[in-house]
Amino acid sequence: MNQCGFAISEYQSRTKRAQRAMADHGISAILLTTAPEFAYFSGYQTRFWESPSRPWFMIIPASGKPVAVIPSIGHELMAQTWVDDIRTWVSPDLNDDGISLLCETLREFAPSGRIAIPSGHESHLRMPLNDYHRMIASIGADRFGDDANITRSLRMVKSDAEIAKIKTACDIAGRAFARVPEIAHRGRSHDMVCREFQRLCLAEGADCVPYLASGLGPSGYSDVISLPSARELSDGDILMLDTGVTWDGYFADFDRNYSVGKPDPKTSDAFSRLQDAVDAGLATARIGATCADVFHAMVKVTGGGKAAQAGRFGHGLGLQLTEWPSLIAAENLPLVDGMVLTLEPSIETTQGRILVHEENIVIRETGAEMLSPRAPANMVVI
Amino acid sequence: MNQCGFAISEYQSRTKRAQRAMADHGISAILLTTAPEFAYFSGYQTRFWESPSRPWFMIIPASGKPVAVIPSIGHELMAQTWVDDIRTWVSPDLNDDGISLLCETLREFAPSGRIAIPSGHESHLRMPLNDYHRMIASIGADRFGDDANITRSLRMVKSDAEIAKIKTACDIAGRAFARVPEIAHRGRSHDMVCREFQRLCLAEGADCVPYLASGLGPSGYSDVISLPSARELSDGDILMLDTGVTWDGYFADFDRNYSVGKPDPKTSDAFSRLQDAVDAGLATARIGATCADVFHAMVKVTGGGKAAQAGRFGHGLGLQLTEWPSLIAAENLPLVDGMVLTLEPSIETTQGRILVHEENIVIRETGAEMLSPRAPANMVVI
Repeated sequence: MNQCGFAISEYQSRTKRAQRAMADHGISAILLTTAPEFAYFSGYQTRFWESPSRPWFMIIPASGKPVAVIPSIGHELMAQTWVDDIRTWVSPDLNDDGISLLCETLREFAPSGRIAIPSGHESHLRMPLNDYHRMIASIGADRFGDDANITRSLRMVKSDAEIAKIKTACDIAGRAFARVPEIAHRGRSHDMVCREFQRLCLAEGADCVPYLASGLGPSGYSDVISLPSARELSDGDILMLDTGVTWDGYFADFDRNYSVGKPDPKTSDAFSRLQDAVDAGLATARIGATCADVFHAMVKVTGGGKAAQAGRFGHGLGLQLTEWPSLIAAENLPLVDGMVLTLEPSIETTQGRILVHEENIVIRETGAEMLSPRAPANMVVI
Repeated sequence: MNQCGFAISEYQSRTKRAQRAMADHGISAILLTTAPEFAYFSGYQTRFWESPSRPWFMIIPASGKPVAVIPSIGHELMAQTWVDDIRTWVSPDLNDDGISLLCETLREFAPSGRIAIPSGHESHLRMPLNDYHRMIASIGADRFGDDANITRSLRMVKSDAEIAKIKTACDIAGRAFARVPEIAHRGRSHDMVCREFQRLCLAEGADCVPYLASGLGPSGYSDVISLPSARELSDGDILMLDTGVTWDGYFADFDRNYSVGKPDPKTSDAFSRLQDAVDAGLATARIGATCADVFHAMVKVTGGGKAAQAGRFGHGLGLQLTEWPSLIAAENLPLVDGMVLTLEPSIETTQGRILVHEENIVIRETGAEMLSPRAPANMVVI
């Protein structure tokens, strides 16, 4: 009864805050369908979400505990959480994969009023579209609406217990990055380096490594979301490893750059400016400053160019690799105590090549605190 | 121009087959939003799907190549595939995250007729629900419909090149499982075993380890989707590791059971019956037999009980850990040459405890062929 390593009071508090916001918005129930939402409100954690075969439903009623409407395969695990109203069906069911049971439960817990579904940016509905249409036809399409971003807003501000988990994940990734010189060197293939890096993350205590992107090229790389190839590391290359590791359900998300041999002065200078940009972001990321303020502080140092293609200079993180908000010019949301963010400026080194640097921070009363171990001022030479 | 290790002819063939089926169903264009769909039609592969922040769109027009409508951060990578019509916007955009561009592109490629979205079981729409409603309101809700399961049906039957990749992934997992006695022993914690097992998978050549579930307990385990705890392996425990590893985008998905010390006769007998069930499934899994036939052949050996809670005795696999079809009593789909399936019977050993065994096979003219290395007849003792 202590799933995810949180006390039950953590889930009670999350649920109550959601219910207060629901009351403010005239919402009778929220319908949830995705892994991070399940984890947030119930502590239900499994890697079984990797299988798309079965839909999973959770209802946050106007009062009381969350209610699970799930495939029978998940009953045992859900029963270990604080949720005690667990309704199951044997899934997959080709004719009715939980939809009748879901509608019946919705009618019971929200006989009238608005049934809200997270519908804003970064959300999606993890159920077949045909079943969604069947559900709203059965209950009445006019009964459904968005959740006024209640779940997103709640998740955006982390509790101390959540921050401690993210810090643990950051420490793990930091130790793995520190050991990269053991596994990356001239002549080794890029894909082998990526395999070995994931092994380092696990050796240092990661539960799993859901994300790894890696760039490799002379004076930088041309994109930041690629998989590695069989190309061998050679002199003058910059190797970038950007990982998302999890510990007890929470992510770290930061990268490190390594120079194969001494970097040329232009690349080295760009890296220094990138560090200055992070420092500028750190200094600006205080309670009351907006996401846009932090973005502008960084972009003032790095300039624009191809680097702008990434679309942003950082984001929230927690139960997911990336969460609300984005550090972009258009985001006027003010920072508050307990927000966990990445600072992720990028800079162009030479035509079409960039460097990206990323750190993880938490907003506190006294300013931004590092969660990731701040990278050394100069690129590590391997 | 050879993304995913396939020749371009593979993508041409997939797209043409989709377009023939679209013509049969009166579909003008298919709209795709998820990672496996992108990989299937374009070869676009990245782990960046882990980030929920940006939507990605691909349109299969009535003729010609797929068209990508994607965030600018993906342009570089998409340009390496055979897709050459790539339209981008700078995402995240708080006001219009690609929806205007998407609607404009849909109007261009499907000025009339039905725009199809995969909507059946196992599918979901990876875009915010608000944006979905905005899109259908802009184009006209009556223009949208499901895709008659065209993408699911195409993906269900694998080409030789796909089967070769799945075989490679199976070989990797097989070598990792063979080395489990190196990392699992009495006194070691369950979570440490799971970390070390993932390291073995990577050492043996996996690109990544998207899935791992593990059961542990005396005479079996009570569920098959749990994460490990800090509990130590002790005499009489059965350890089950069920992994999904990928190689070049394709999954292996099978498990192995290990006995900590000699298993008791009842557990040992249950394991033997489980192997008999796999053999019965193997013998039945021939062209023309139905999924239900294979299911019944296995359940006849194992019996019902708690094991039925899993809901099925196997499934398809490929670009995803689990794919269509399911081995269940209600599925009358006949097997065809090139289907890749798991056989995954489970059996109750004692009240509330089960064993699950899983193998991966491909349906061929001459019958089922093993893709995973068939497990030894008796449980490996560690």
